[in-house]
Amino acid sequence: MPFEVSSLAEIATLAKTLPTADTASMDAARARQDSLTKPPGALGKLEDITVFMAGWQRTDRPRIEKAQALVFAGNHGICDQGVNPFPQAVTAQMVLNFEAGGAAINQLCRANGAELSVIPLDLDRPTEDFTKSPAMSEAETVTAINTGAAALDTDADILLLGEMGIGNSTIAAALACASFGGAPEDWVGAGTGSDAHGMALKARVIADGIARHGTENPLQALANLGGREQAAICGAVLAARAASIPVLLDGYICTAATAPIFAANPALLDNCLIGHASAEPGHTRLTEAMGKPPVLDFAMRLGEGTGAALALGIVKSALACHNGMATFAEAGVSDG
Amino acid sequence: MPFEVSSLAEIATLAKTLPTADTASMDAARARQDSLTKPPGALGKLEDITVFMAGWQRTDRPRIEKAQALVFAGNHGICDQGVNPFPQAVTAQMVLNFEAGGAAINQLCRANGAELSVIPLDLDRPTEDFTKSPAMSEAETVTAINTGAAALDTDADILLLGEMGIGNSTIAAALACASFGGAPEDWVGAGTGSDAHGMALKARVIADGIARHGTENPLQALANLGGREQAAICGAVLAARAASIPVLLDGYICTAATAPIFAANPALLDNCLIGHASAEPGHTRLTEAMGKPPVLDFAMRLGEGTGAALALGIVKSALACHNGMATFAEAGVSDG
Repeated sequence: MPFEVSSLAEIATLAKTLPTADTASMDAARARQDSLTKPPGALGKLEDITVFMAGWQRTDRPRIEKAQALVFAGNHGICDQGVNPFPQAVTAQMVLNFEAGGAAINQLCRANGAELSVIPLDLDRPTEDFTKSPAMSEAETVTAINTGAAALDTDADILLLGEMGIGNSTIAAALACASFGGAPEDWVGAGTGSDAHGMALKARVIADGIARHGTENPLQALANLGGREQAAICGAVLAARAASIPVLLDGYICTAATAPIFAANPALLDNCLIGHASAEPGHTRLTEAMGKPPVLDFAMRLGEGTGAALALGIVKSALACHNGMATFAEAGVSDG
Repeated sequence: MPFEVSSLAEIATLAKTLPTADTASMDAARARQDSLTKPPGALGKLEDITVFMAGWQRTDRPRIEKAQALVFAGNHGICDQGVNPFPQAVTAQMVLNFEAGGAAINQLCRANGAELSVIPLDLDRPTEDFTKSPAMSEAETVTAINTGAAALDTDADILLLGEMGIGNSTIAAALACASFGGAPEDWVGAGTGSDAHGMALKARVIADGIARHGTENPLQALANLGGREQAAICGAVLAARAASIPVLLDGYICTAATAPIFAANPALLDNCLIGHASAEPGHTRLTEAMGKPPVLDFAMRLGEGTGAALALGIVKSALACHNGMATFAEAGVSDG
């Protein structure tokens, strides 16, 4: 039965029914790491990544044969406020670029071995301007969540998530601010190319949106301030969790998309690693608030899932060591 | 004509004759980056890595079809002082493990597409105990340098360097201390598993060695305090430079092996990136002293070239974006 939600309120209580990481597999993977021909712990964070993968794949020998990358695209009514120097038409143009294989995410999926699907979500029907009304109705939000959930290939060994949407660095900052508090300015960065004036404008529209919609209900904020690609990312994360599939989130916009479900219950994101630390300053604040240090930091700020795809190579390398190395006993190496 | 040196003194003046990075190729690569379907600079450090590769490969379209990984192994007389809890026999045992494909470096080379060669250097004839005499004569040092240089495949698109040698975290700290000053304690870490007592012992023997041999001549320090695998790494770096091949160094021991040539002339390492930041505290001090921030940081401390092999995947991803992405004009995407 495919994973679906019927209301936003339902998400807050999902953690009670969704699988948690398998600690027996994690313990067995840790024991194997300690038997391999290296000083204990010498592979550092690669060992932690391996144990994480073991817990969600529910085996002491986690593997990646099929890596699925999903990129959701949406358009945003908040662009009516002039928050992005690019026209909204660029979202559809970039979707065509993804489909033609010409974007960064295409190259990074090929280089790191992920199968990419791009899912445009009603690009010709932007969400509402959240300074004037809720961005989406609850029904629209639930539809987008379920579209994201349905896109998951439940045979995947790992899921990578990314997004495209002109204006969605403003959406990200709004969702982060609504979920974690602080001033809008704390969460706003240059995005695709805003100057100081543009960033001040972004902060102002976020303040307007939060004043209008409040922050009492984090899941409602996903509808009030979010967009379809943000809701779809939430749906894909939850569907992956239901299938016990580990997830690599991308940078600021992708991570902020999940902020409402983290705010509802942090445990809902236990199956997620954050692929990279974005150059957007709000991302560092966000990953620290979530207690999830990113796998990589290359000062990238492109979105599309590029940081997740780059991190996939690291996860594969970690598992290659885990599965391919000889133990001290097998290799006849003295362990001290 | 293969690259060779005939004396240590000769190395200090090599920079006058070796090729430098091709700035025209770097400028052309930077211009191409700015034309690709992404905001300018949005691939962050991946763009810098691409431009570095363009400069040494002397083309605006750098590629990696052949990546060569060289791991040099040596044994060290300083082990007579009890600086390592493992027996020296482990060096040869690990060489057998490399040859059988069971070590971490084998998995990481396979996962990231490098051809691995392991070169043991007179393992049954350790260097001298540097607290009692020079570790190697100048002739032995030059022989090891030229062995490293001769191991380079001049058709390689990039060279990865690593090492194995019980006791060589003490050698690394000694070379770093002789090259950059400070107290021995500043450069000493746990290595393969020293406790506080072991680390104090390492610092004491380094102080003895430096007191005996002095630090006036950094290249002479390579002979007085170093080992064959350190000299071979220097030779491979210089031979790669002569062939204008970019290099990925590994962690603390590999980077410290090159400290004497950096101290003689920092420009001699211009073709080198440091693959990762080791968990050994001396490595951070060393990479900062060299002004070379490492590509990755996973708190690894294994050596063997593992950090260089992991970084190779990142470099390949950077070049995949550079060569495979569409320009704004090609994709029909508005650039604002």
